[in-house]
Amino acid sequence: MKICFIGTGALGGYYAARLAHAGEEVHCLCRSDYDIVAREGLRVKSRDGDFDAKVHAHRTAEAIGVSDLVILSVKTTSNEDIPPLLKPVVGPDTILLTLQNGLGNEELLNQHYPAAQIMGGVCFLCSNRTGPGRIHHIAHGYIHLAEFSGGVRERTREMARLFSRAKVRCEAMESLGEIRWRKLVWNIPFNGLSITANGATVEDILLDPELLLTARELMAETIQTANAEGHAIAEAFIAQNINYSSNMGPYKTSMQLDFEGGRPLEIEAIIGEPVRRAWRLGLKVPVMQELYSTIRRWSAKS
Amino acid sequence: MKICFIGTGALGGYYAARLAHAGEEVHCLCRSDYDIVAREGLRVKSRDGDFDAKVHAHRTAEAIGVSDLVILSVKTTSNEDIPPLLKPVVGPDTILLTLQNGLGNEELLNQHYPAAQIMGGVCFLCSNRTGPGRIHHIAHGYIHLAEFSGGVRERTREMARLFSRAKVRCEAMESLGEIRWRKLVWNIPFNGLSITANGATVEDILLDPELLLTARELMAETIQTANAEGHAIAEAFIAQNINYSSNMGPYKTSMQLDFEGGRPLEIEAIIGEPVRRAWRLGLKVPVMQELYSTIRRWSAKS
Repeated sequence: MKICFIGTGALGGYYAARLAHAGEEVHCLCRSDYDIVAREGLRVKSRDGDFDAKVHAHRTAEAIGVSDLVILSVKTTSNEDIPPLLKPVVGPDTILLTLQNGLGNEELLNQHYPAAQIMGGVCFLCSNRTGPGRIHHIAHGYIHLAEFSGGVRERTREMARLFSRAKVRCEAMESLGEIRWRKLVWNIPFNGLSITANGATVEDILLDPELLLTARELMAETIQTANAEGHAIAEAFIAQNINYSSNMGPYKTSMQLDFEGGRPLEIEAIIGEPVRRAWRLGLKVPVMQELYSTIRRWSAKS
Repeated sequence: MKICFIGTGALGGYYAARLAHAGEEVHCLCRSDYDIVAREGLRVKSRDGDFDAKVHAHRTAEAIGVSDLVILSVKTTSNEDIPPLLKPVVGPDTILLTLQNGLGNEELLNQHYPAAQIMGGVCFLCSNRTGPGRIHHIAHGYIHLAEFSGGVRERTREMARLFSRAKVRCEAMESLGEIRWRKLVWNIPFNGLSITANGATVEDILLDPELLLTARELMAETIQTANAEGHAIAEAFIAQNINYSSNMGPYKTSMQLDFEGGRPLEIEAIIGEPVRRAWRLGLKVPVMQELYSTIRRWSAKS
């Protein structure tokens, strides 16, 4: 199976390395990392064991050509650059799998390709890019994936097995919307407040009763919107989420790391699109809307 | 009439200079400004005409002694330092007038002195402290003042006349609560968002439809809380407030100037106390609460 990765940062680089190390034919579209990845491949430092992986590095999508599976793992802030990159690598039988954050990514692909070719995955991964082609895998890494058209098919299970063989726990799920919204119940408060509350870590938010109350309100509005879109997420998920976060310690969110690195923030996919979905449904989400309106002024331009 | 000012910054320095220039006996408690104020008095640059004013400068409250009128014009972030400063200057017939921002200042004074001795004023003044004893008066300056115990008395009108004689337009109002809440309808959104929305000026907020919507929500929650406290402020005041703000241009709020100067922010008086009042009344104010929880993390320690 010919696999093409668009994006080999902390997330794409990790999964590309796992798949290549398991023997898959992995092609990576590289920009500044090209020289090192072409020469030395990807190097992963992991508490599950360090490893190197040979991948095919390319400077252009044209050099890769049509692939069986194209995995999108660039930041959503680069979404407008994606369509021209896909043209040379996507044929009529290619599966497009986006592992990006937030809402709206599958819909963007669907503007150019049939829904039947599109899958989405939600990743639970703590990793950092420590240099060109160098990834530090800190914890977790499992993926929930689903068909954009809904329902688990044989190819969905096959895709989950592909990752599982590469030591990435992966589950095929019934509803893409539900897994994306469940992730947002965490992402909206913790990523959002990390910016508007001056670099608050997960621990800072959990230990400040005022901030925790705000995080709960954001989670409640997110669940309310998800419910209105037909996804059954119970109120009890708020307590589960807070519980799950309570052993993360002074964890910095990806948005905070992007902020510190002077990079654009993934505001539209993580907060803007959920707010617009709520509005379209006639819901009031005043706390999310406040977060959205203020956080936009902290992002570097993409 | 012996008048004592606690605080001779942008606000206190301006009104002290006006009163002294009109012939009143004005004593100022000075800290770092002492040398210059003792030697040269207060100097005001104003588009209504520049002027200098001789005042009695003192290093300690003891040196001032009991006064007829004590005017509080320090930032509310110094409120805990005030009670010991008042002891030497307040006698049984002294009137205490606080010109400070937000809610809770009269109540603090009332912990130490009878309500009948306390008055409050809301100032509409654009001024900057440009150096020790140096004030730049940019615009406005009028004061709405009222009795902490409510109702307009002869002495309330006398106080208004005192300021009016000194070319400070001043009106005696029936309800201190109402004038304080009306000011908060402006102060909460514009001061608050100037911090959490990364230095947004009044103009930035008015020209960004998302931020303006958030500002409106904050105004609506403020009015709702004021109404529940028994102050008749109509919804239409939101539109009036936005209208009134629309010719301020890229105006920086006092909280933003404090932030840029590395000083503590007046969060408790302007946002914290209003949120607590709402809670005490059983009201939900989720947008104000989010603002409060996030803004606290931007303040320097007092």
